[in-house]
Amino acid sequence: MRKDNRKTNELRSILMTLDYIKYPEGSVLIEFGDTKVICNASIEDRVPPFMRGQGKGWIAAEYAMLPRATEKRNIRESSKGKVGGRTMEIQRLIGRALRSVVDLNRIGERTVWVDCDVLQADGGTRTASITGAFVAVVLAFDQLIKAGKIKKMPVTDFLAAISVGISSNGTELLDLNYGEDSEAYVDMNIVMTGEGEFVEIQGTGEEATFTTNQLQAMLGLASDGLKRINDIQKDALGQAAGSIGETKKTKEDTP
Amino acid sequence: MRKDNRKTNELRSILMTLDYIKYPEGSVLIEFGDTKVICNASIEDRVPPFMRGQGKGWIAAEYAMLPRATEKRNIRESSKGKVGGRTMEIQRLIGRALRSVVDLNRIGERTVWVDCDVLQADGGTRTASITGAFVAVVLAFDQLIKAGKIKKMPVTDFLAAISVGISSNGTELLDLNYGEDSEAYVDMNIVMTGEGEFVEIQGTGEEATFTTNQLQAMLGLASDGLKRINDIQKDALGQAAGSIGETKKTKEDTP
Amino acid sequence: MRKDNRKTNELRSILMTLDYIKYPEGSVLIEFGDTKVICNASIEDRVPPFMRGQGKGWIAAEYAMLPRATEKRNIRESSKGKVGGRTMEIQRLIGRALRSVVDLNRIGERTVWVDCDVLQADGGTRTASITGAFVAVVLAFDQLIKAGKIKKMPVTDFLAAISVGISSNGTELLDLNYGEDSEAYVDMNIVMTGEGEFVEIQGTGEEATFTTNQLQAMLGLASDGLKRINDIQKDALGQAAGSIGETKKTKEDTP
Amino acid sequence: MRKDNRKTNELRSILMTLDYIKYPEGSVLIEFGDTKVICNASIEDRVPPFMRGQGKGWIAAEYAMLPRATEKRNIRESSKGKVGGRTMEIQRLIGRALRSVVDLNRIGERTVWVDCDVLQADGGTRTASITGAFVAVVLAFDQLIKAGKIKKMPVTDFLAAISVGISSNGTELLDLNYGEDSEAYVDMNIVMTGEGEFVEIQGTGEEATFTTNQLQAMLGLASDGLKRINDIQKDALGQAAGSIGETKKTKEDTP
Amino acid sequence: MRKDNRKTNELRSILMTLDYIKYPEGSVLIEFGDTKVICNASIEDRVPPFMRGQGKGWIAAEYAMLPRATEKRNIRESSKGKVGGRTMEIQRLIGRALRSVVDLNRIGERTVWVDCDVLQADGGTRTASITGAFVAVVLAFDQLIKAGKIKKMPVTDFLAAISVGISSNGTELLDLNYGEDSEAYVDMNIVMTGEGEFVEIQGTGEEATFTTNQLQAMLGLASDGLKRINDIQKDALGQAAGSIGETKKTKEDTP
Amino acid sequence: MRKDNRKTNELRSILMTLDYIKYPEGSVLIEFGDTKVICNASIEDRVPPFMRGQGKGWIAAEYAMLPRATEKRNIRESSKGKVGGRTMEIQRLIGRALRSVVDLNRIGERTVWVDCDVLQADGGTRTASITGAFVAVVLAFDQLIKAGKIKKMPVTDFLAAISVGISSNGTELLDLNYGEDSEAYVDMNIVMTGEGEFVEIQGTGEEATFTTNQLQAMLGLASDGLKRINDIQKDALGQAAGSIGETKKTKEDTP
Repeated sequence: MRKDNRKTNELRSILMTLDYIKYPEGSVLIEFGDTKVICNASIEDRVPPFMRGQGKGWIAAEYAMLPRATEKRNIRESSKGKVGGRTMEIQRLIGRALRSVVDLNRIGERTVWVDCDVLQADGGTRTASITGAFVAVVLAFDQLIKAGKIKKMPVTDFLAAISVGISSNGTELLDLNYGEDSEAYVDMNIVMTGEGEFVEIQGTGEEATFTTNQLQAMLGLASDGLKRINDIQKDALGQAAGSIGETKKTKEDTP
Repeated sequence: MRKDNRKTNELRSILMTLDYIKYPEGSVLIEFGDTKVICNASIEDRVPPFMRGQGKGWIAAEYAMLPRATEKRNIRESSKGKVGGRTMEIQRLIGRALRSVVDLNRIGERTVWVDCDVLQADGGTRTASITGAFVAVVLAFDQLIKAGKIKKMPVTDFLAAISVGISSNGTELLDLNYGEDSEAYVDMNIVMTGEGEFVEIQGTGEEATFTTNQLQAMLGLASDGLKRINDIQKDALGQAAGSIGETKKTKEDTP
Repeated sequence: MRKDNRKTNELRSILMTLDYIKYPEGSVLIEFGDTKVICNASIEDRVPPFMRGQGKGWIAAEYAMLPRATEKRNIRESSKGKVGGRTMEIQRLIGRALRSVVDLNRIGERTVWVDCDVLQADGGTRTASITGAFVAVVLAFDQLIKAGKIKKMPVTDFLAAISVGISSNGTELLDLNYGEDSEAYVDMNIVMTGEGEFVEIQGTGEEATFTTNQLQAMLGLASDGLKRINDIQKDALGQAAGSIGETKKTKEDTP
Repeated sequence: MRKDNRKTNELRSILMTLDYIKYPEGSVLIEFGDTKVICNASIEDRVPPFMRGQGKGWIAAEYAMLPRATEKRNIRESSKGKVGGRTMEIQRLIGRALRSVVDLNRIGERTVWVDCDVLQADGGTRTASITGAFVAVVLAFDQLIKAGKIKKMPVTDFLAAISVGISSNGTELLDLNYGEDSEAYVDMNIVMTGEGEFVEIQGTGEEATFTTNQLQAMLGLASDGLKRINDIQKDALGQAAGSIGETKKTKEDTP
Repeated sequence: MRKDNRKTNELRSILMTLDYIKYPEGSVLIEFGDTKVICNASIEDRVPPFMRGQGKGWIAAEYAMLPRATEKRNIRESSKGKVGGRTMEIQRLIGRALRSVVDLNRIGERTVWVDCDVLQADGGTRTASITGAFVAVVLAFDQLIKAGKIKKMPVTDFLAAISVGISSNGTELLDLNYGEDSEAYVDMNIVMTGEGEFVEIQGTGEEATFTTNQLQAMLGLASDGLKRINDIQKDALGQAAGSIGETKKTKEDTP
Repeated sequence: MRKDNRKTNELRSILMTLDYIKYPEGSVLIEFGDTKVICNASIEDRVPPFMRGQGKGWIAAEYAMLPRATEKRNIRESSKGKVGGRTMEIQRLIGRALRSVVDLNRIGERTVWVDCDVLQADGGTRTASITGAFVAVVLAFDQLIKAGKIKKMPVTDFLAAISVGISSNGTELLDLNYGEDSEAYVDMNIVMTGEGEFVEIQGTGEEATFTTNQLQAMLGLASDGLKRINDIQKDALGQAAGSIGETKKTKEDTP
């Protein structure tokens, strides 16, 4: 039993409030227990310079935490004048993950800006961001379809992320909260599609190491948890969920 | 009658959700119509270098908007690598205003960091920030009192802020929303104490000018509106409101 | 009587040296007592990106102090790598004030860059900057007229600024020097047109507050002082002063 | 058969030139085929602020590429004024990996700075960096032992890294060069100890996905390749290799 | 004959206004023809970190131009967020030159900050800066002596600088103005002591080359001109000039 | 006799490894004793904004040191977020020197980027950079000729650089290593053409001064040394050396 009375393979309660902010094309407030992240998807009618003229779109993500999203207040990155390494890693991860389930050929020369802003952090902010951002992006594309700007949902499959880890007493755990995460020997983030394929695996011995058996156990926990999260996403999206997977990723999309 | 059916001297609906974020010593989500700002007050047990060794405290404010708090997405200041002039003006204003009603001699060598983060902007974000930050700061001091770190509430009076302006057809308006603000000839922000004294007046002809009579009319609208806002603050604070004004600003506090 | 033997409603001696620097289209060295500011107006034959294609011009201001313009040497903002909040506030104020009395529709797609560089600071540098910059801008437009690039003086009225305040013993004062300013309870900057209309009011209780009566007293002092400053500007400008106000601000100019 | 005539499970030729630069405590020029990286380990007799007073050491890594290490010249990060996201990710990875096999309790309050500078890049620069940096760090500790500053080799096991991936025709490949990497569907970097335990797994579908079977195949390729690389490291280190593993990672070392 | 009717070996008219700014310990407005530079010397009672604990002082220089000191307006370095290469070269040169004639052992752990701010640039701003800064520094040390903080003038000799060059028709010229400088094939700045020894020679073929004979001719012109400048400095300094050279540079001073 | 047994007029051993890096159009690893610098010349098919539309080319240089190129590790300029004054001075010098022997009219609207990266520093890194960069640039132009993009070698003469100085005991020395340089009273860098004309003289009394006789002695040492270096460059370049000087610098090239 874990401190918050969860079983080792139990997710925290997950809530999604759709259309939380009124301006973005897609907006979701996602909560994993006490972790709260606003995921906003904005459509811009042009692509970054390196993509111009290819008739394809792009998805870019930014991630930030409010200064007091954490136990101790952090200095704003805008005050420091630069974005830190952890932030960059996370925003690169979110963007890459979302692009893996979107057929960028079908959205025209548009950029989807995904902003994940953590209001309150209690572990798993990057995986909550990916999970919520996926829903926000589907909402944004749904608006594009309704506005007649694109014809079909370009999202080829569901996408969600979760953390797993190994506690200091050697137990594999699903969905670590901050207390668990800061004491864990191993920390792993898994991003998977609805079909159960891997999009990203990032496993780190926190100045420790782990065996092949431990790896398999963690992958198993993650895989089961992610199926349940896909169901929650489907419920939240309602009718819009039906269009996911209508298009398949075209070969040309892979660079 | 205004587009949203308000009278010229009518406030938007004002909501405050206390303890919105769990970590800060004081936390308030304030809403003025569709404007939503999280105001978090954090206590740090030291003061900035220029204040050290005086036995007094300090209040510093930071202000930011989520990229999609507005109709059109803004580039993050952390990505730009610098904080813009408008942001700096606003955070200097918030800090100055709060310091005017706190006896800094009574809080020891502590800094209160006030973070105002705009989730959704529909006009009046700086005045909503001051109004909500005041409540967050009272909550934070209340915690300090309960923890036995300070003896008495160091807040000497209520504090709130509101915008007034002159529309393009010459009408004076209270509490402008974004649509009204962007069309106004004159824009003025007033910060006042519960006793009805001015803390700050910032009036700007938006590349226009205004007469003494128009100034008086705007000051009157603001004064009435701010009294109503003080009542809302009092209700929200409940018991903690009672201790406001128990101490008077000491002479030594003014630099 | 004040330390420098002025009456409470007395200005310091004001001097303007026109054409102080040889390269700018308009150049003024303005002195308010020991405060010395070089105000240079430069014409650039294009506008910033957000103004392009509208057939209108723009006025942008920059403000800086030499490191040893003050009692204690300040670190250069170029060395710090960023422009501080106080500087940004002041340069935004100067630009906004000047634009309020210029019909930007009449100057073509040109930018007037106004550089206010403080050589020696003894209080009131921002109001001296606005007062001197107004004269420099008129000189620059006069050159444009003489060069046949614009037809009429686009300046619709005189413009000047002054500081007023309340001393620690409760007296309202006009045109505070540095010693007075640093001890004042309330500090207010007023920008007014020749017609006596307000362009900008910025009043700040320096961690203190002020009443409506005190506000009125300060506005009265400022209004009288500004009329005298307008006369000094008129004398300095000579013949060029005659063309001010020939054009009226067009309605389309207000955004 | 691959374009450069390697088998799918074949490493490129690996060369290490020890003591390549004369000043650092440990210095290695490592080559994986045409990829050339200088790995310098420098000992500094203090730790970063967050580690002070714990009696422990720290290992920090920095990574950079010469502008013309690549086909097309890159702009220097010093000219841009900021370090990019990719660079930050890599240097965080290198530091974390090295710390997993060093007992930081045994090195006193010292920082080992590891600089990995890529002279020529042909794929696998981050894994070559980790592999070479490990050797440089052992050399640096060997010097500390010879100088009598520490007693025993604090390195608890061998450490090496390699990339694996899935080519666009679905074949799993070991040690991808730049041409292969840029066409691959999946790209994975594995860091392992000499005992065959994982330190880090970073697998990314390059806007694609991969199955559990493909994951297992890649892990197998990596595991075999890394054993061969450990042998090359052992040969290069000669006598110093003997002391690796003499100390075991103490429990207290894990945060 | 040159465009401004000077002979090839003729200086422009040189003016120095001492105590131009009231706050600095030493202040000089220097004019070489239309080139105008304010040179302020400020005493700070501590040295930079790399000098601490040696009982010696330091001299550091900063150089800047007002945006409209030139024909065409320049963007401020504070707005760009970084100091350019030309500026850095010049401020390093000024500091180095001044340190060559000051016995830093005699000034205690103090820093002399020398700020050279160009109000109007017409060629030779860096040599005017050195020449004026020398006088400002002597004034500042004179104040230290009068305040009883140091005993003797630590300045060991006079110091001045001048530019020489070769015009596009092959004539060697002394003290080039901007028009001459921008057309010159060769540009050379010479810094010399009162004794006629070199402190600095910086000669540059502006994408051209020059012979040994041309070098000798330029050195001769500079040497003669600098003697005349020393006389002007002596006159300006009056009584304070008498103390220059009372102390000799101690051997220990050279690093 | 010097510490490393060289005579006062003796160069260190000089080695050049051509085509050291495979990607650049010209690449040289140059060694002056223990000083090792990679000089890469890259051709870009466009010029910087200020050169566009003139039909001419440009040469720009960048210089950097690996953090542990020196006895003590230096912080990377990319980590500091800005390029230091010394670096800027050196890269401006390298670019200027190279442009003096290239007829920029003959290379079309192309930029040659010269990157000088110091792997190991033992004095004279800037002069080694110029000497090696000259060879790299000739190699790059030779490739352009072979590719039929330009017709003739645009390099008008040989170019090399060397340092000379005066030791603390008053002896003039050629090609100072780091130990000698850090103790020298005077430090001078000379850049000369194959014809023996000066391109650049930068002589600095390191907080000391030097006489005309000492200057002449140093110029003599440099001139002799540079002839020997030109021979080494000629040998290294082989056949490509023959084309140097085929074209003469056109008058129009000088700005």
